[in-house]
Amino acid sequence: MAKLLSGKEVAASLNESIRERAEALRARGITPKLAIVRCGENPSDLAYERGAAKRAEVCGIEIENVLYPEGVTKEELISGIEKLNGDDSVHGVLLFRPLPGELRKCESEIANHLLPEKDVDCMTDLSHAGVYTGKDLGYPPCTPEACMKILDYYEIDLKGKNVTVIGRSLVVGKPVTMMLMGKHATVTVCHTRTVDVAGIASKADIIVTAAGALKSLTKDFVQPGQVVIDVSINWDPDKKDGKGGIAGDADFEEVEPIVSAITPVPGGVGAVTTSVLMEHVVRAAEWFR
Amino acid sequence: MAKLLSGKEVAASLNESIRERAEALRARGITPKLAIVRCGENPSDLAYERGAAKRAEVCGIEIENVLYPEGVTKEELISGIEKLNGDDSVHGVLLFRPLPGELRKCESEIANHLLPEKDVDCMTDLSHAGVYTGKDLGYPPCTPEACMKILDYYEIDLKGKNVTVIGRSLVVGKPVTMMLMGKHATVTVCHTRTVDVAGIASKADIIVTAAGALKSLTKDFVQPGQVVIDVSINWDPDKKDGKGGIAGDADFEEVEPIVSAITPVPGGVGAVTTSVLMEHVVRAAEWFR
Repeated sequence: MAKLLSGKEVAASLNESIRERAEALRARGITPKLAIVRCGENPSDLAYERGAAKRAEVCGIEIENVLYPEGVTKEELISGIEKLNGDDSVHGVLLFRPLPGELRKCESEIANHLLPEKDVDCMTDLSHAGVYTGKDLGYPPCTPEACMKILDYYEIDLKGKNVTVIGRSLVVGKPVTMMLMGKHATVTVCHTRTVDVAGIASKADIIVTAAGALKSLTKDFVQPGQVVIDVSINWDPDKKDGKGGIAGDADFEEVEPIVSAITPVPGGVGAVTTSVLMEHVVRAAEWFR
Repeated sequence: MAKLLSGKEVAASLNESIRERAEALRARGITPKLAIVRCGENPSDLAYERGAAKRAEVCGIEIENVLYPEGVTKEELISGIEKLNGDDSVHGVLLFRPLPGELRKCESEIANHLLPEKDVDCMTDLSHAGVYTGKDLGYPPCTPEACMKILDYYEIDLKGKNVTVIGRSLVVGKPVTMMLMGKHATVTVCHTRTVDVAGIASKADIIVTAAGALKSLTKDFVQPGQVVIDVSINWDPDKKDGKGGIAGDADFEEVEPIVSAITPVPGGVGAVTTSVLMEHVVRAAEWFR
């Protein structure tokens, strides 16, 4: 039986330290604040907003909701971002993407108007450059950093370890590769064009899977002694006696008995990401002066 | 006996196409121009300058040498870069680094004043972001792109191939990893903390070695059928009957008889980099209007 790497436990520990740092800031007259910019009424944005509000309250962080109608223009949105750039009371800015309708085409142009020092969710080119170069520019995306927080919390050594990353996206695969390399792991990045992912993954010490494919990580991908970090959030119609529920990439029933440790889904990486976001906001506020 | 992947041949073919594009630009009244900024009289900068001047002439590209004394101030250098930014006749800018003396500490700050669209040697954060994200921002560093040009010229397919990259620097290891992934290769990045580089490399289809360590790539690292791209330029005191000469990472006498193809040093990757730089200048000039 594998040890369950509980994201909830990691988040609780992280929230505690964020709250202390937020309190220290308040004592100096600074209230760490995150502005959440939403265009329209996308249900998944609304759900994220509610989750973020709760987590922010736990962490002692203020939220400012900035709302635009679905038909907002590019110019209005850019001017809104520039207003937040100039607002010293706002330390971090989160803009929900994808943007609605035609705005999607100029999403990158709009996002790049945000100052990297307020870019707590890694949407600017300079934040990406920071992840890639290791320079202190902007903030890394929250999900790969959540993976690193879990590995760190459970004291899983990375130096000289062989890690297979499954997925090469800008949101998970590439940044987690950079972060793992920064901790001296030897990383192999697998993706849709990789031949024999199972053969490669089964030889690794650690697998980080972000394929986004239900039950794609089967027993053929794993060996005893491995650690599996399951990043994906897929819909599994069979869960909860056919009512459906979320699940990761791992075929949990097959994989969990073999490996030495695994993050559950839900309650794994996803449970940590919002805390990472809050940590970025506190860090941005600490940097502010 | 391995096929020798001749960088000279690749460069000749590249120079030919650059010259044609430069001619087409001239016909439209645009002379592609590279400004080379040098501070002081570093011998290796002077040697590079001479090589670049020759290659530029072959390619039909104009060079403007911008010289500063070793004691130039940060402010003077920044104002010089900004002047080049504003000069429509200059399409690309190369700044020799490391900068002399105290300037070295603020090298990144100085370099980032250059417009990414003129950053033909990848010294700005935005150019790095372009390499990492795959977005069209700035230009990639010349050496990893030279590796890709060689693989492309010799029609070495990358899709689904396993590539071991040795080295994780921003100049070679990281960017070549991004470029190889972009061509759908499965890449493993090895470095000084990697356990058993030989074991990993010997299972790859292609090895890109940028360790910068003479004779570090021995017969234990290779297998029949492999392609070796040797990026490093090391000094080998035993070459030329003890007079010394440059050599790559591969122990050529050991490795060449085993693998199916290998780049020689000299005459391999290094022979292509200056042509890649010239290609960036022409591309920058083409973009200009």
